[in-house]
Amino acid sequence: MDAREETSAEERLIAKYFRPLATHPGALGLGDDAAVLTPPQGRDLVLTTDGVISGVHFFPDDPPETIGRKALRMNLSDLAAKGATPIGFLMSVALPANIEENWLGAFASGLGEDARRYSCPLLGGDTDRTPGPISVSIAAFGSVPSGKMVRRATAKPGDCVMVTGAIGDAALGVLLRRDQHLAERLRLSEMACAHLRERYLLPQPRNALAEAVLRHASAAMDVSDGLAGDFAKLCRASCVAGEVDVGRIPLSDAARAVLAADPALLETVLTGGDDYEIVLTLAPRKLSAFQTAARAADVTVTEIGRVTAGEGTRFIRDGRPLKLTRPSYSHF
Amino acid sequence: MDAREETSAEERLIAKYFRPLATHPGALGLGDDAAVLTPPQGRDLVLTTDGVISGVHFFPDDPPETIGRKALRMNLSDLAAKGATPIGFLMSVALPANIEENWLGAFASGLGEDARRYSCPLLGGDTDRTPGPISVSIAAFGSVPSGKMVRRATAKPGDCVMVTGAIGDAALGVLLRRDQHLAERLRLSEMACAHLRERYLLPQPRNALAEAVLRHASAAMDVSDGLAGDFAKLCRASCVAGEVDVGRIPLSDAARAVLAADPALLETVLTGGDDYEIVLTLAPRKLSAFQTAARAADVTVTEIGRVTAGEGTRFIRDGRPLKLTRPSYSHF
Repeated sequence: MDAREETSAEERLIAKYFRPLATHPGALGLGDDAAVLTPPQGRDLVLTTDGVISGVHFFPDDPPETIGRKALRMNLSDLAAKGATPIGFLMSVALPANIEENWLGAFASGLGEDARRYSCPLLGGDTDRTPGPISVSIAAFGSVPSGKMVRRATAKPGDCVMVTGAIGDAALGVLLRRDQHLAERLRLSEMACAHLRERYLLPQPRNALAEAVLRHASAAMDVSDGLAGDFAKLCRASCVAGEVDVGRIPLSDAARAVLAADPALLETVLTGGDDYEIVLTLAPRKLSAFQTAARAADVTVTEIGRVTAGEGTRFIRDGRPLKLTRPSYSHF
Repeated sequence: MDAREETSAEERLIAKYFRPLATHPGALGLGDDAAVLTPPQGRDLVLTTDGVISGVHFFPDDPPETIGRKALRMNLSDLAAKGATPIGFLMSVALPANIEENWLGAFASGLGEDARRYSCPLLGGDTDRTPGPISVSIAAFGSVPSGKMVRRATAKPGDCVMVTGAIGDAALGVLLRRDQHLAERLRLSEMACAHLRERYLLPQPRNALAEAVLRHASAAMDVSDGLAGDFAKLCRASCVAGEVDVGRIPLSDAARAVLAADPALLETVLTGGDDYEIVLTLAPRKLSAFQTAARAADVTVTEIGRVTAGEGTRFIRDGRPLKLTRPSYSHF
């Protein structure tokens, strides 16, 4: 055997599509068994993992350039909520044997664009054939000053509750993808539909706000399984109670138009998931500095409620607590 | 909504089966968006990812307690080959909606046993429903003294080539699983069959040898895609040539019995993959100290060849280079 010519199809695929994303020196050009990372002095590492499966987290006919980006952004959103600065990521991709080169090229190019945009290069990976749906699993790493990772479990009674961006768009975007006639029934404009679909296709992680979260938040988490359930998780972890004023929850114009046409979809907005916003708590004396930092980072933040002593969370509308059938997206 | 009772099925599943594995303090009991790790002083982090998919890396009816263990051990094998000491791992699991609690219990208990055995606790994870086959993707982390990770690309002409354990067992074990009548045709004993099947079911990563690899190896890699192809990768990365004496490659008694019955299966032994042994190179003056360290670690090591100047690898049998049709396992 002469080794010069004997690179496998798998090696060629990795070299062609994924090596260009491995710009971190510790990735060793994807040419080793492992990546190596000299941890930044005086900082802790923050590690998270999240992934997407075709037919579960994205539609099989979604544009391939969005699929890796979505997987990476889900992880970036976790890092942002913890106040962490991205370092890089490992990726495990499972692909059908007959995957098209066009698909792969678009997938890698979208992912590479985000790796650059968020300064989060590929560190290493694993590429497998699968008889099942395409899946992309990412483990992402960031860093925070030692001991400073922002946790879920540290909210205090009296804290303000804040949320970034707008809630519910992605969950409504999925409904529109699933039901061709829904837009017509709701008399939604083309623009509103496009906005909601886009928010499902491509999350907007709030990494620009990470530094402000780190400096000011008492507790924070990524809103990925619905604001209602995720805020309840934060309160439960912190052994506090929480109250949210539903009327103050930030909504996009498109989401407002949907709710005007069908108020029952409020439940979808609050529990549908895929927001990739940050819900956080902070001491009232920090509110103003946080708002200033958020403006500087160009991220909208809205005060939506209060942390109190006790147990349980309540979402108040017109003075009365909402009853939600299923507070949180669950895979099982 | 009262948050006390509102934990989702997904949360309960994670709490019941996976939280007991999350013994690392940085895992925060799996109760946060991310894990946090204070990197050990003066050491680099080593990061790797590998996974298993039902029907590709294991048989759907393999015992569930072996499946997570196999995925973890594949990663531990990479860490061992780099000379790294395990720290912990992140895991992404995709499961069918109707997964049985018995299956999950056995899966988690096998995985937990290995997490303890190899001092590699769960740091965090992601659990998803999938319409496809069960898949388990792991990202594992270890550490080495700063700048000391053992690479693939640093073999030197004149180095000895060594391999751990025995080669080819797992690839023969797969053949036996696929073809019910093969054992009979080859007149293999029950014991030989059991040995080969077991080696496929459960790799034996050589983490006990990691310290010796770190101290003595000039280059090393995990043998996972077949010795022939993997040794060729090591030589290619190092810009050297290599020669292996096929007669010196360590084989189990069971593999010897197979080859006695069907010599053509030598190709499977050399290229079939799933060995999870380590191939490494070292300066001849280090050979004796390495052998002593390997004996102390209770890991068999065998000298099988030499690194030379030039390009290409040759596997020599009876004085002539072997022709191999497909040197390396490739998913594509």
